[in-house]
Amino acid sequence: MKRATLGEIAAAVGGKLIGEAKIEITGVAGLRNAVAGDLTVLSLPRLRDLVGATKASAIIAPPDLAEAPCAIVQAGNPEYAFIKAYEFLRGREEGPVGVDPRAAVAEDARLGRGVYVGPFAIVEARASVGDGARIFGGCYVGRDCVVGNSCTLYPGVVLMDRVRIGDRAILHSGVVLGADGFGFVTHEGAHHKVPQLGTVEIGSDVELGACVTIDRARFDVTRVADGTKIDNLVHLGHNVIMGEGCLVAAQTGFSGSVEVGARSVFGGQVGVSGHLAIGPGSVLSGKSGVTRDLAGGRRYSGFPAKEHEKEVRQLGALKRLPALEKRVKELEDRLADLEAQSEDDKKSG
Amino acid sequence: MKRATLGEIAAAVGGKLIGEAKIEITGVAGLRNAVAGDLTVLSLPRLRDLVGATKASAIIAPPDLAEAPCAIVQAGNPEYAFIKAYEFLRGREEGPVGVDPRAAVAEDARLGRGVYVGPFAIVEARASVGDGARIFGGCYVGRDCVVGNSCTLYPGVVLMDRVRIGDRAILHSGVVLGADGFGFVTHEGAHHKVPQLGTVEIGSDVELGACVTIDRARFDVTRVADGTKIDNLVHLGHNVIMGEGCLVAAQTGFSGSVEVGARSVFGGQVGVSGHLAIGPGSVLSGKSGVTRDLAGGRRYSGFPAKEHEKEVRQLGALKRLPALEKRVKELEDRLADLEAQSEDDKKSG
Amino acid sequence: MKRATLGEIAAAVGGKLIGEAKIEITGVAGLRNAVAGDLTVLSLPRLRDLVGATKASAIIAPPDLAEAPCAIVQAGNPEYAFIKAYEFLRGREEGPVGVDPRAAVAEDARLGRGVYVGPFAIVEARASVGDGARIFGGCYVGRDCVVGNSCTLYPGVVLMDRVRIGDRAILHSGVVLGADGFGFVTHEGAHHKVPQLGTVEIGSDVELGACVTIDRARFDVTRVADGTKIDNLVHLGHNVIMGEGCLVAAQTGFSGSVEVGARSVFGGQVGVSGHLAIGPGSVLSGKSGVTRDLAGGRRYSGFPAKEHEKEVRQLGALKRLPALEKRVKELEDRLADLEAQSEDDKKSG
Repeated sequence: MKRATLGEIAAAVGGKLIGEAKIEITGVAGLRNAVAGDLTVLSLPRLRDLVGATKASAIIAPPDLAEAPCAIVQAGNPEYAFIKAYEFLRGREEGPVGVDPRAAVAEDARLGRGVYVGPFAIVEARASVGDGARIFGGCYVGRDCVVGNSCTLYPGVVLMDRVRIGDRAILHSGVVLGADGFGFVTHEGAHHKVPQLGTVEIGSDVELGACVTIDRARFDVTRVADGTKIDNLVHLGHNVIMGEGCLVAAQTGFSGSVEVGARSVFGGQVGVSGHLAIGPGSVLSGKSGVTRDLAGGRRYSGFPAKEHEKEVRQLGALKRLPALEKRVKELEDRLADLEAQSEDDKKSG
Repeated sequence: MKRATLGEIAAAVGGKLIGEAKIEITGVAGLRNAVAGDLTVLSLPRLRDLVGATKASAIIAPPDLAEAPCAIVQAGNPEYAFIKAYEFLRGREEGPVGVDPRAAVAEDARLGRGVYVGPFAIVEARASVGDGARIFGGCYVGRDCVVGNSCTLYPGVVLMDRVRIGDRAILHSGVVLGADGFGFVTHEGAHHKVPQLGTVEIGSDVELGACVTIDRARFDVTRVADGTKIDNLVHLGHNVIMGEGCLVAAQTGFSGSVEVGARSVFGGQVGVSGHLAIGPGSVLSGKSGVTRDLAGGRRYSGFPAKEHEKEVRQLGALKRLPALEKRVKELEDRLADLEAQSEDDKKSG
Repeated sequence: MKRATLGEIAAAVGGKLIGEAKIEITGVAGLRNAVAGDLTVLSLPRLRDLVGATKASAIIAPPDLAEAPCAIVQAGNPEYAFIKAYEFLRGREEGPVGVDPRAAVAEDARLGRGVYVGPFAIVEARASVGDGARIFGGCYVGRDCVVGNSCTLYPGVVLMDRVRIGDRAILHSGVVLGADGFGFVTHEGAHHKVPQLGTVEIGSDVELGACVTIDRARFDVTRVADGTKIDNLVHLGHNVIMGEGCLVAAQTGFSGSVEVGARSVFGGQVGVSGHLAIGPGSVLSGKSGVTRDLAGGRRYSGFPAKEHEKEVRQLGALKRLPALEKRVKELEDRLADLEAQSEDDKKSG
């Protein structure tokens, strides 16, 4: 990480500096752990109480923070400004470059400029790796794969044949793209494998967490569009089509042929049944289970997933259910009394 | 893929040809994407409307489809006939063969005829690999393992010591078989590892999806019987015994010592508690949680898992629960009125 | 496994021997599968009926088992005594030692005494591997990592840069530690990656199952304390802090910044929302979903997770809900009758 003055940093992030421009910044750190020389950030309003005790030399904060024991860089979106500051300080990342002699790269594979291929990585026939891409040790890039510019495949990523990845994608260790979709035809009691002849296509600026698995399409393509970010241990079945800019938390699963609209957000451990359409801008609460098409543009919760407010109402009623049972019992008793009395009245009437 | 005439294909799949036998087929594709020269299939009744627009040269379809803009091969089970047609067209698959010089194969490992071992694969002492098996790059086959004939281990599969696999099994990347079962004895506050001395045995014609983990038994064996197909990210604890011809969707988990009867089907994200017996022919809906033994031969849903119809009834009632609360409130009001009136009647009586 | 007399074994485990001390033991096995020469164990009370039929030469059992068709070693905690007996019989494990010439170990990596590094393993710059640690083939140990003494990393484990592991930890195949936490800032519609600058720290005597993923902290550290055991396919988000001696079953997931108190126990497929605190000694039933802080020291179940007894009551009421609906309908009918009658009475009164 290079050194920079606070004035340079404030200019780089387009923030308003309250303090001395010549203060030298040598690192970044969290509010609690920052030391002299560090730039920190007020990322969540509820952390504001910690500002007074920070030992950082400067803090990026919202425009309404005017007092701190260090210099302040005010920014409309402090978190975003902090990312920019970090990138400015980091400068051009000096990662490893070159093809390790212990890698197994096919003669007819095409490697772009500035590529890194680590030891024991395998790049199969006719695969293409874009400029500046990094294929860490132990990765497998199958035949006819296309890896875009500036992609990073961390150790142990597997791309089966013909998988295509856009630019600047980040694939964490254990990702498996292009395993066969789960499809069988049962004939005379035995399950016969349906050929999975399609492939997987990942857009640009996509990030896939550790051990994410995305299966190849039966025909055609399983697709994740640009800018979508997926957390660890998520599963996408064959022929899933996921729109742009979605966020998917860990351990969520999509059955085959699900279509997800752009900018949808999924909590962890969500499950989606096959062949459903989830409209753009859907927000699914953690652990929800989608069993029918959703229009999108709002929040859904529960299993089966429904409008969030309905689920809240149902859960509230469920909580009161044991009490409701008692109320019904009481009603029955009181009504029986009244009926008996009414009967008596008749007789005596 | 080889070329063949439609007559040859119809004969190979045992279908009835409506159209010219001499039409040449050069590929297979989905209904929407097929072009001239392709054979396609009508796999789902709801896709029937797409038949009129297909550009395929021929379609495999059920016997009641008599009109199409291309030749028709009628078959009782079109999906199955299509698999047969594909296999006929593909001919004998020409996969890689031979032991890559960069693989690490123990001297006393036994490799069958026509085996492929990719670069950086490891085959440890006394392991045995059957005829025509393919061990892709980066796989690990532990000591004393047995891999059957014509198995495929895709890149990065791990078989720990003594694991045994039947014939024609397909293990996708990231599969880990034979990690230690999860067993600890707590003594004076500390958890002590229970030795896991058994192994894992996988039958013939089994397929395991990416990142499936199956733990070795404490003693004895964790077993998956012939013809069972398991999707991505599924977990089988130690000593699980899974019967023949089961289907298990992604992210489902089986705790230790569960026994699953033959031909059972599990949706995604199902969980099964330890030491339970699930009868043959059970069908578990997605996300269900099994907490007691199930007799089998029917569908179960929900958590705790119960007969599907019961779960449907419960979910229906739950949906009406907020309305039910209002009805009870109304009853209470009306009853109070009646009681008050009855009290009045008495007084005035 | 070495041979030992039963007298030696009883002494080693501190058990009371009923039978001949000179009996020779040559192996260990489960109650059902043991043969002559084997030592077995009565691990669960419900297996007591099997004792009469065992063919083992000796059994470790609770003090109240006095009769068996073989010698008996009575012990207060038979399971624990059996572990001790096994360790005594196994002696000093003779695993592989030495650095395979096909491994890629950086010149400035530090390897302790008696270390094993398997073929195609990668140990990057400045990484440190403790005495007696075993790094199996295909593992990746990133720059500046610290692996403690006597650790085992099974084939294919990935430690990203700067990850630190205590002594005697066991990491099963497919474990990924130190992938980036899942953090993005949305600015003008695009998700920007929040730098994940912290790391992961795993205590001593920790065991991590196959394909466990633990992400690096944003700043600071994601931590698993000493003696905690985690099953397969579990996910820990960035900045999770897990206390000592916890047990976590398979497929459970912890969102970012969750804190878990010591000696907590999690069933399978549990989910925990971000930034929550779970008190020490919490026991979470399988499939539960934690949505608020929990005090600890007791059992919780359901989604949202609540005191176990409350969940049981709610589930009971839910089961009776369809019947409750009928009761309410009946009440409505009866009340309507009574109201009508009361109306009649008035008119005729």
